[in-house]
Amino acid sequence: MPQGQPSNVPEDGLTTRQRRNRPLLMVHTGDGKGKSTAAFGLAMRGWNQGWNIGVFQFVKSAKWRVGEQTVLERLGRLHAETGEGGPVEWHKMGSGWSWSRTRGSEADHAADAAEGWAEIKRRLAAGAHDLYVLDEFTYPIAWGWVDAEDVVETLANRPGHQHVIVTGRRAHPRLLETADLVTEMTKVKHPMDDGQKGQRGIEW
Amino acid sequence: MPQGQPSNVPEDGLTTRQRRNRPLLMVHTGDGKGKSTAAFGLAMRGWNQGWNIGVFQFVKSAKWRVGEQTVLERLGRLHAETGEGGPVEWHKMGSGWSWSRTRGSEADHAADAAEGWAEIKRRLAAGAHDLYVLDEFTYPIAWGWVDAEDVVETLANRPGHQHVIVTGRRAHPRLLETADLVTEMTKVKHPMDDGQKGQRGIEW
Repeated sequence: MPQGQPSNVPEDGLTTRQRRNRPLLMVHTGDGKGKSTAAFGLAMRGWNQGWNIGVFQFVKSAKWRVGEQTVLERLGRLHAETGEGGPVEWHKMGSGWSWSRTRGSEADHAADAAEGWAEIKRRLAAGAHDLYVLDEFTYPIAWGWVDAEDVVETLANRPGHQHVIVTGRRAHPRLLETADLVTEMTKVKHPMDDGQKGQRGIEW
Repeated sequence: MPQGQPSNVPEDGLTTRQRRNRPLLMVHTGDGKGKSTAAFGLAMRGWNQGWNIGVFQFVKSAKWRVGEQTVLERLGRLHAETGEGGPVEWHKMGSGWSWSRTRGSEADHAADAAEGWAEIKRRLAAGAHDLYVLDEFTYPIAWGWVDAEDVVETLANRPGHQHVIVTGRRAHPRLLETADLVTEMTKVKHPMDDGQKGQRGIEW
C-alpha cells in the first residue's frame, strides 16, 4: 500500500501538516471478517510508533480471548521492560471491566456497557491514550445501551490528538456520518457457509 | 466475534475435526483499507499459536516499511529468545528478495515477481510455513507477471496444512473461485478524499 496522495486539497485554512496530523475516527463495519483483526493490526502499528494503546472489548463472554490480546499485552510488557513501542491496556466487558468492582455481572450487560462507555469518556477527556480500539462497540449503541448522540458528541469533541477505531456490524448512521474513515468488510465467501467451524489461529 | 457455528453441514465424508482443520486459502480484496492490516493481524494471531509465519510483500519500493514488519520481526526474535509464539520471516520484493543475489533490480519488477512466486512454490512444496501472507500478490497476477493458472493450481494442490492469505485489489476471478474465504474491503469514506495525506501509525 503506497503512501497515498490526496485526490483534492480542501480550502480549510489548514496546512498539510496540520491536516495530516488530524486525529481520526475510524469505523470498521459490515458482515465480513477482518473488522477487529484490522483494528488490532492498527494497534500493533501504533504500538510500533510508541503510542499508548487502549483496547476496550464490548464482548459479552468472559472466556472469549483472541490471540491479539496475548500478543498486544506481551508487546505492552516489552515496552515496560525495554522501552520499545508503547504501553498497552486491554479491557474486556465480559470478564467485568478491570477498573470495576462488579466482576462480570452476567445479568446486566446494558449496565456494563454503559459503565464501559463512561470510563472511555473519562479517558478521552483526560487524553489517556493515543489510540482507542472500541471493539464491537456498535452493538451497545444499536441496542440502545449507550446513547448514540452522546457517543457522536463526545467523539466529535474529544480533545488533543486521540485516534479512535470502532468495530462491529450495524454501525449507527450518526457514527458513520461523524467518522473520518469508514471501511465496510463484506463477506464474499466464507468456509462456515460450507459447514466448517471456526478454527484456532484463524478465528481466534 | 463469537466462535461461529456452521449454517449447514456438508456431506463430504469429513469429520467436523477434519473439516475444522482444513487449511484455508483466504483473499482480502476491494478498494478499502484493512486488506493488508487484517492479514498482518492474522499473522500476529498465528504467531500466538506457535505457527511458522512467512510474509512475502510484492511491493515495488524498497523504502516502504510498515510498522507490522518491525513488530512481527520483533515477535520472531522473541520466539528465538524465549520460545514464545512461532518463527517469523518477512521478505520484500522491492529491496530485492533476501534469498536472491540480485538486489532490487529496479528495472525488472516482472522478473522479481516471478522469482518471488518461484520461491513461494518451493516453500509450499516443502511445507515451510504454517501461514503465508502474500501481500499485494494480486497485482503481479493482474499484470501477467505471474501466471494465474499456475498460482491457482499450486495453491489448490499445496500439501499438508498450510494457510495462505493473498491481499490486493483486482483479485483474479480464478483466485476468488479457488479461495475458501474472500473478504472485500470497501471504502465508504476516506480522509484522503478530503485532501488529507496518509499519516504515521495509521497508513504505515
